[in-house]
Amino acid sequence: MNTFGMILRLSAFGESHGAALGGVLDGFPAGVPVDTDLLRADLRNRRPGQALTGSGRQEQDDIEILSGVFQGKSLGTPIGFIIRNQDARGADYAGLEHLFRPGHADDTYRHKYGIRDWRGGGRASARETAVRVAGGAFAKMLLGMQQVKVHAYTQSIGPVSIPGSVRVDAEQARRFVSRCPHQDTDEAMQQLLGKMRERQDSIGGTVACEVTGLPAGWGEPVYDKLSARLAYAMMGINASRGFEIGQGFAASRMEGSEHNDRWRADGTTEQNLCGGVRGGISTGEPLYFRVAFKPIPSIGQEQRLLGEDGALHEMKIGGRHDVCCVPRAVAVVEAMAALCLADFMLLARSSKA
Amino acid sequence: MNTFGMILRLSAFGESHGAALGGVLDGFPAGVPVDTDLLRADLRNRRPGQALTGSGRQEQDDIEILSGVFQGKSLGTPIGFIIRNQDARGADYAGLEHLFRPGHADDTYRHKYGIRDWRGGGRASARETAVRVAGGAFAKMLLGMQQVKVHAYTQSIGPVSIPGSVRVDAEQARRFVSRCPHQDTDEAMQQLLGKMRERQDSIGGTVACEVTGLPAGWGEPVYDKLSARLAYAMMGINASRGFEIGQGFAASRMEGSEHNDRWRADGTTEQNLCGGVRGGISTGEPLYFRVAFKPIPSIGQEQRLLGEDGALHEMKIGGRHDVCCVPRAVAVVEAMAALCLADFMLLARSSKA
Amino acid sequence: MNTFGMILRLSAFGESHGAALGGVLDGFPAGVPVDTDLLRADLRNRRPGQALTGSGRQEQDDIEILSGVFQGKSLGTPIGFIIRNQDARGADYAGLEHLFRPGHADDTYRHKYGIRDWRGGGRASARETAVRVAGGAFAKMLLGMQQVKVHAYTQSIGPVSIPGSVRVDAEQARRFVSRCPHQDTDEAMQQLLGKMRERQDSIGGTVACEVTGLPAGWGEPVYDKLSARLAYAMMGINASRGFEIGQGFAASRMEGSEHNDRWRADGTTEQNLCGGVRGGISTGEPLYFRVAFKPIPSIGQEQRLLGEDGALHEMKIGGRHDVCCVPRAVAVVEAMAALCLADFMLLARSSKA
Amino acid sequence: MNTFGMILRLSAFGESHGAALGGVLDGFPAGVPVDTDLLRADLRNRRPGQALTGSGRQEQDDIEILSGVFQGKSLGTPIGFIIRNQDARGADYAGLEHLFRPGHADDTYRHKYGIRDWRGGGRASARETAVRVAGGAFAKMLLGMQQVKVHAYTQSIGPVSIPGSVRVDAEQARRFVSRCPHQDTDEAMQQLLGKMRERQDSIGGTVACEVTGLPAGWGEPVYDKLSARLAYAMMGINASRGFEIGQGFAASRMEGSEHNDRWRADGTTEQNLCGGVRGGISTGEPLYFRVAFKPIPSIGQEQRLLGEDGALHEMKIGGRHDVCCVPRAVAVVEAMAALCLADFMLLARSSKA
Repeated sequence: MNTFGMILRLSAFGESHGAALGGVLDGFPAGVPVDTDLLRADLRNRRPGQALTGSGRQEQDDIEILSGVFQGKSLGTPIGFIIRNQDARGADYAGLEHLFRPGHADDTYRHKYGIRDWRGGGRASARETAVRVAGGAFAKMLLGMQQVKVHAYTQSIGPVSIPGSVRVDAEQARRFVSRCPHQDTDEAMQQLLGKMRERQDSIGGTVACEVTGLPAGWGEPVYDKLSARLAYAMMGINASRGFEIGQGFAASRMEGSEHNDRWRADGTTEQNLCGGVRGGISTGEPLYFRVAFKPIPSIGQEQRLLGEDGALHEMKIGGRHDVCCVPRAVAVVEAMAALCLADFMLLARSSKA
Repeated sequence: MNTFGMILRLSAFGESHGAALGGVLDGFPAGVPVDTDLLRADLRNRRPGQALTGSGRQEQDDIEILSGVFQGKSLGTPIGFIIRNQDARGADYAGLEHLFRPGHADDTYRHKYGIRDWRGGGRASARETAVRVAGGAFAKMLLGMQQVKVHAYTQSIGPVSIPGSVRVDAEQARRFVSRCPHQDTDEAMQQLLGKMRERQDSIGGTVACEVTGLPAGWGEPVYDKLSARLAYAMMGINASRGFEIGQGFAASRMEGSEHNDRWRADGTTEQNLCGGVRGGISTGEPLYFRVAFKPIPSIGQEQRLLGEDGALHEMKIGGRHDVCCVPRAVAVVEAMAALCLADFMLLARSSKA
Repeated sequence: MNTFGMILRLSAFGESHGAALGGVLDGFPAGVPVDTDLLRADLRNRRPGQALTGSGRQEQDDIEILSGVFQGKSLGTPIGFIIRNQDARGADYAGLEHLFRPGHADDTYRHKYGIRDWRGGGRASARETAVRVAGGAFAKMLLGMQQVKVHAYTQSIGPVSIPGSVRVDAEQARRFVSRCPHQDTDEAMQQLLGKMRERQDSIGGTVACEVTGLPAGWGEPVYDKLSARLAYAMMGINASRGFEIGQGFAASRMEGSEHNDRWRADGTTEQNLCGGVRGGISTGEPLYFRVAFKPIPSIGQEQRLLGEDGALHEMKIGGRHDVCCVPRAVAVVEAMAALCLADFMLLARSSKA
Repeated sequence: MNTFGMILRLSAFGESHGAALGGVLDGFPAGVPVDTDLLRADLRNRRPGQALTGSGRQEQDDIEILSGVFQGKSLGTPIGFIIRNQDARGADYAGLEHLFRPGHADDTYRHKYGIRDWRGGGRASARETAVRVAGGAFAKMLLGMQQVKVHAYTQSIGPVSIPGSVRVDAEQARRFVSRCPHQDTDEAMQQLLGKMRERQDSIGGTVACEVTGLPAGWGEPVYDKLSARLAYAMMGINASRGFEIGQGFAASRMEGSEHNDRWRADGTTEQNLCGGVRGGISTGEPLYFRVAFKPIPSIGQEQRLLGEDGALHEMKIGGRHDVCCVPRAVAVVEAMAALCLADFMLLARSSKA
């Protein structure tokens, strides 16, 4: 269940404070030029200016590709890779072996498995998302051959949001600390993040994602709608709590005469209110969706912990953590969208005889 | 890709105006008493009082179980079943063979497959959800053996919503025409639906779902989080546009100190803000989530259609259709949640050695 | 686990004496002309002249296609179909409710599921192979578009085998009662089957299969070798006990200098000793393999049965059964090979970028 | 397609002369004590006394476990591991970049992927089986908790075979150079292998495998019969050409009255002719099967190679290779059987309600 994808499959492993993270990307077609600059840039994009996001752990995320690439091209065989944990400090978590932190998955892992790696959340830590980003970078190389582009950006952090009237250039997001490609909003977000850090608190936010260049006809009719697989991909990211595509929840308050996309003579629609997906299949117009993230549960304030023995403990928890996951999540949303779409790209090759 | 589930798998088939719909439910354990009353009641729940929802097609949804059940119990072998289309009128769609309706999947199917069944949307029609409800009824029989209960209800239709201060009894939903278990809201919804019908328009809405009796420890850590699979299940339902769990999008505006569930001495939390899932795994507290549905694109007003030849046509489209999919969707949300959970119930048996 | 295939997937259901058998064929590309003559001919091929094969049950195997086909072509959506059991006589098995027959799966089903359908073996009966043949016929329609042809035939029944020096025309097999396309051998087989019937005994045999027109490059490197998936497909057929490809077991006694296929200038080999598969991937030369079937365990002689209570019973078992499964198995081997190959045909579309 | 298993899944990667091999073992239950001695012993078992098997490459197969194990026990999360290629000498293959060797997969990979890693066969090399053995060792740890034991041994090499009258102790196989647990036969095999090496030739053979302690009720009825999945597992091993279970091909020459297992009062059978599987499900009696391997195509004699340009070249091929794969294959057969069975062990937990 640590495998994502139908034809293009990423099988991942790794605990936060174990030896390494890694993955096997299988089903990746042969002959794709491997762009290691893109790969490294995407991994960097997951490590935003820590000055503002927190006192977090510093990992270089040096990736080692172990197979599946030969003389600069993909072989068609599985691409195995690892990313060593170099700044792991499991000892930071000493004393938490038998305690469940609030808002974390400590108790649920214990219930599920009977035992758990209590060092920084183990497999539940967002540290594993580095593997997703690596896998997503390969997916982008494949999508790029068909001019499909995936760009995510921070849309809101707490109450600070890009004004509705502003149209942003998603492609520029990674130039901003908050990953919000609107200067004023980025500055306001940085200010908010600074304030949260002072208060030893954390905060949630939303990530928006746009896909352009998508041809019509990707996606499956019933359970594996493009929108359903995207929701699955997004809600599988740590701390995500909501997903919407096109008009999303706003569509639930609209009337049919208002929501029905109005055809243009060239076959596109006037407003693309459906967000690029009708009946679960891509329309050929840009795809857009939004993901909500809750605040990171790790905060510096005194909190209540639950002992495995049922006792309650009021205490401050050590360790290093971000103030907000959203700027990092931008790279992860992009990666998961790319993996999801590249999978449909391959699947679409079997639609017709 | 018409199969839902990992261990418990429903493989479905059927076009709206073809001979029949049906499915194969595989991986269903042996020895479960088959409750045909529950099965029929759930299929009925998908057919709310048509007086208000529309001038829609009338299908009895008589189900025939063809295998997998013997002397009142499941055999462990696949349960095959069919539901004949008895009120199909493909001829209603004559004249639409080469036209794409607005808001429908006519064009996307054409792009994907090259050909399409133009009678009432073919496989894209919500007619196929009868199979989901049948599969979900079996899943409920299995969940029922562990006292897990799944109840969905209409939370809002257009602007009419259950007041935030009201606590409803989800179990009573099916007694109300709108499937909203709050008398005043149900009445307001019926009125709104009547108004929409008069205006030959349609309207969207949201469905809420609650699961009780869920043990802690169901769900998988990374890609197959309980929340991710639920989102996948819900966003695979026709016309769904958004999903949120726990505090959902509201969580994106909250701070960690506010959102972190506060432990009680008995191991539960004070507010269950996480909605019964932490780190993708069930906590043992009630699960709750919400799904947004767009307005049905079929409306009686004159609209613009796109010809396969690129010409635009302003016309009224015939056929029979509901004014709002939400009252019907309640049964489908319930079914998909049950299928998703029963799958995790079986998967949980492999968590420990 | 009643689903066969990776991209092209057949999900099957049905007990021997239940209401019907059926299946859902998903992943079948759109636009394939549906050849119902081929479909019916293949189902007929599974019902060889009963005069010789036994006093067996007579089923017409009338198939009803319920979805996925429109105006004579595949829609790309799942093809649902059922075959009613019309000559079922569950009552023949009265008295066997609590007894385990020798050589049958009565006891293993009981151990696995706790309960079982004791009427004619339930799901363990070869009756289910009608569904495989139907699915295989569709696979052949797809393969036929690329000129790939699959032909199986009876190679031996008991000690009677096609002489090693004889080259047969596999395509003619269905014109012979035994499905052995060599007149003299067919006659000897018929005689042997007659003798076995007189003695109220049964007998095993082998089926050979040839595939021509196969392009090079189908199959996967490691676990999903073409040879591995074929073995899986064949060993999943009732009563199969062995599989070999190319030189098979004889290769285990050969030397490398003898077994290595010797290249010809045109890129083919002098002997095709590898049977059309090297490293798990098709070479473009004809594929051939062989399957061994045990004798049918149902015989008319007095035998020992085991009671669920542990008591032993010496008795004759009623019911209708064939003397040898091999003539029928020819159609099933062909169907499973076709399903397996059509799956690889689609998968091969993703090998390159 | 480089993933093996349904619930317990091994996803593997690695080329023969790339940086490393490795795998991700997912679905492995939590709480299993990890026996690294067993793991290393099994990897050693795949490296038999090279004095006799060939002048082969020397790899230590040092394995590094990167995740999924904590404080000596499995966590339930995926077990990632790598094995570095330390004695790789890709340069040995210089000059073969554009040539297809006889009996190898050079041409088929080229056809499938367009490009290939020509260093020692790339992914087609048996080097990848080290990953299978590692995965299989974990599977054995799980099976061991239920006293299920898997033991393979060399049954024949070329014409030298264990005499039919001899009963061997499979558990002792790894004490013999040839992995044949019968002293006289082992000696004859060593002699034969020496002779083959002198002649610069190679030779095939067969591996037998026995499983004891298996409970009744593992396996699935139709496509995923225990015998079918075992065949799939075995035929996926490099150089395998045939599989048989129970009486195998001999069963095709038997009569029902002879082959039907005769019940004993205690519920076992007199001869276990079915080899521990009836109707695809384990009977609780010992399982046994046999796998045929062709001779290794790499030999030192002058052979004919085919150029990508169509030209034929008579030449000797360098590189280091074994004389016979069978002694090594014993460990691989054992591993694949263990992976297959452990998967069914977990799947069996879902048979009943």
